[in-house]
Amino acid sequence: MPERTGKRTIRMTGDVSVRSAAGIAGSKESQGPLGKYFDKTYSDDMLGQASWEKAESRLQTDAAQIAINKAGLEPGNIDVIFAGDLLNQCISSVFGLRSFGIPYLGQYGACSTMAQTMIMSAIMCDSGACQKAVAVTSSHFCSAERQFRFPIEYGGQRTLTAQWTVTGAGAAVIDNGSTGSKIKEVTVGKIIDMKVKDANNMGAAMAPAAADTIMSYLSDTGTKPDDYDLILTGDLGYVGSELLIEILKKEGIDISSNHNDCGKLIFDREKQDVHAGGSGCGCCGSVFCSYIYNELKNGQLNNILFAATGALMSPTSSQQGESIPGISHLLHITSK
Amino acid sequence: MPERTGKRTIRMTGDVSVRSAAGIAGSKESQGPLGKYFDKTYSDDMLGQASWEKAESRLQTDAAQIAINKAGLEPGNIDVIFAGDLLNQCISSVFGLRSFGIPYLGQYGACSTMAQTMIMSAIMCDSGACQKAVAVTSSHFCSAERQFRFPIEYGGQRTLTAQWTVTGAGAAVIDNGSTGSKIKEVTVGKIIDMKVKDANNMGAAMAPAAADTIMSYLSDTGTKPDDYDLILTGDLGYVGSELLIEILKKEGIDISSNHNDCGKLIFDREKQDVHAGGSGCGCCGSVFCSYIYNELKNGQLNNILFAATGALMSPTSSQQGESIPGISHLLHITSK
Repeated sequence: MPERTGKRTIRMTGDVSVRSAAGIAGSKESQGPLGKYFDKTYSDDMLGQASWEKAESRLQTDAAQIAINKAGLEPGNIDVIFAGDLLNQCISSVFGLRSFGIPYLGQYGACSTMAQTMIMSAIMCDSGACQKAVAVTSSHFCSAERQFRFPIEYGGQRTLTAQWTVTGAGAAVIDNGSTGSKIKEVTVGKIIDMKVKDANNMGAAMAPAAADTIMSYLSDTGTKPDDYDLILTGDLGYVGSELLIEILKKEGIDISSNHNDCGKLIFDREKQDVHAGGSGCGCCGSVFCSYIYNELKNGQLNNILFAATGALMSPTSSQQGESIPGISHLLHITSK
Repeated sequence: MPERTGKRTIRMTGDVSVRSAAGIAGSKESQGPLGKYFDKTYSDDMLGQASWEKAESRLQTDAAQIAINKAGLEPGNIDVIFAGDLLNQCISSVFGLRSFGIPYLGQYGACSTMAQTMIMSAIMCDSGACQKAVAVTSSHFCSAERQFRFPIEYGGQRTLTAQWTVTGAGAAVIDNGSTGSKIKEVTVGKIIDMKVKDANNMGAAMAPAAADTIMSYLSDTGTKPDDYDLILTGDLGYVGSELLIEILKKEGIDISSNHNDCGKLIFDREKQDVHAGGSGCGCCGSVFCSYIYNELKNGQLNNILFAATGALMSPTSSQQGESIPGISHLLHITSK
């Protein structure tokens, strides 16, 4: 059962495993450096659906179905599903997952949702409240663009600090068994608002939240960056990653040699026109649940921190002059 | 620590208490039958803010602050806050709660959010993952109308099956102490889609979900409706409540003598022009956290089921021809 360690960190005292995971990706993502790791890719971003929103729902259906299959389970074996996405009222989760008939708890952590759903799943499994949980999230470039920015057809020019919303999804089956990589501790993020107002620079808005959560975790556990093979954030992209390293350096913490970011990993910066990198719930979701999970499984990675970040804004809040608060939730995951 | 009982129900084996609660309400709600029970009411629904969205955020700030004060605590004593609302990207929760500096996990269960946040808080406290949690939610008539329906100024006529979104908020401080009413078991809802498509009849869309969750709970615990002083749903309103009673009657379960609904309780149907009753996250939130909590405290109620219901749709999903799936999360709460 979970227990608190330090001020904000929660330690799993039992075996809490990521038993299986699946990452799904759209066309641009499948052409990037991680293309071969995804469990399923689509060359048409409509996925054969009538709308982008329905296409995004389909990404979640696929991710959950494949992850459950890879665990050798059926939907009926799953006690609860934690899911969320960027669309208003989280409709891609609802419509993508309704057919499974699994008890459902909708989560909203913006682009930090993959970490948030995994945290909730881990605590539920370690506590005995459930045996098997699924964590799932998605995003879609086209549904996000039209909801948060401009109609795709308008062809608006993007700033160099803007990130590219990933068309993709990730799902992880989490249980209290001994197979798969282990979730050791989790740290729940605070809402950190440094008054950044530029909706085209989400990396800058979210970097202070990542710094706050990573510092809390290291302090709560008495560990240092070098204790980990990889400190993976997402999705700060290029701009936010530089800021995170700089903020932590000022606090005497150097993560420059073992930090990476899902938004940097998923696209080829030279060949793919994505400016500051990838973003969206599906960025962390698809990267963690395919490439990273694979590296943990084959022992290339053994001991990582995964700190997903979210920008907690809406077009309405920005239009009303509000700043963009950030949040970051962290998991410590080991290969065994 | 929590343990599973039956197929879907989770039992708290320790003392999990609703240590304090606070309900906040707007002008129309304060003039209704529960007016005297609210901890704070506003005669101006702008709450002195520059927009309806900021006013709704303020409702959450008030609810959380008053609930924490009533528990004799400071925000720094709270380990985690679970919150959500109806606005796109749940901005009233984010902006209403950012100043507290409490680790934050955003929830989205539409109008079932009060029950969902209480369920999460209860499991976290019973498991040892935290000591004290706050569950909070809100809604605002004007921010909901403009987001989901028509501009207020348009003065659109409402159908008789339509419900009136409550301007209000509720917050509950939940801990593993022995003071206050107790959360005994919880049942997490499934997404139930009976293909209702009328966005002006949410009660009909949500009633089957309430029926499913209540039946599951009764079956999992081997209890019957008469074992409870009150089976409280929210927010089915008048239309949905009748449907719920009818659906359960067909299954051989009669709740007609001890059922009520937050959407029926909050307004005076004769004197206040609300058609099918109240709705919105803030309906269950403000009714449970003021009147109902008060009745539990003074022993007028001793043993209740609280099953909040949500309609998991967005204007976009409805415009794309989707049906309105419902969900209902349940808690069994006793006065001691």
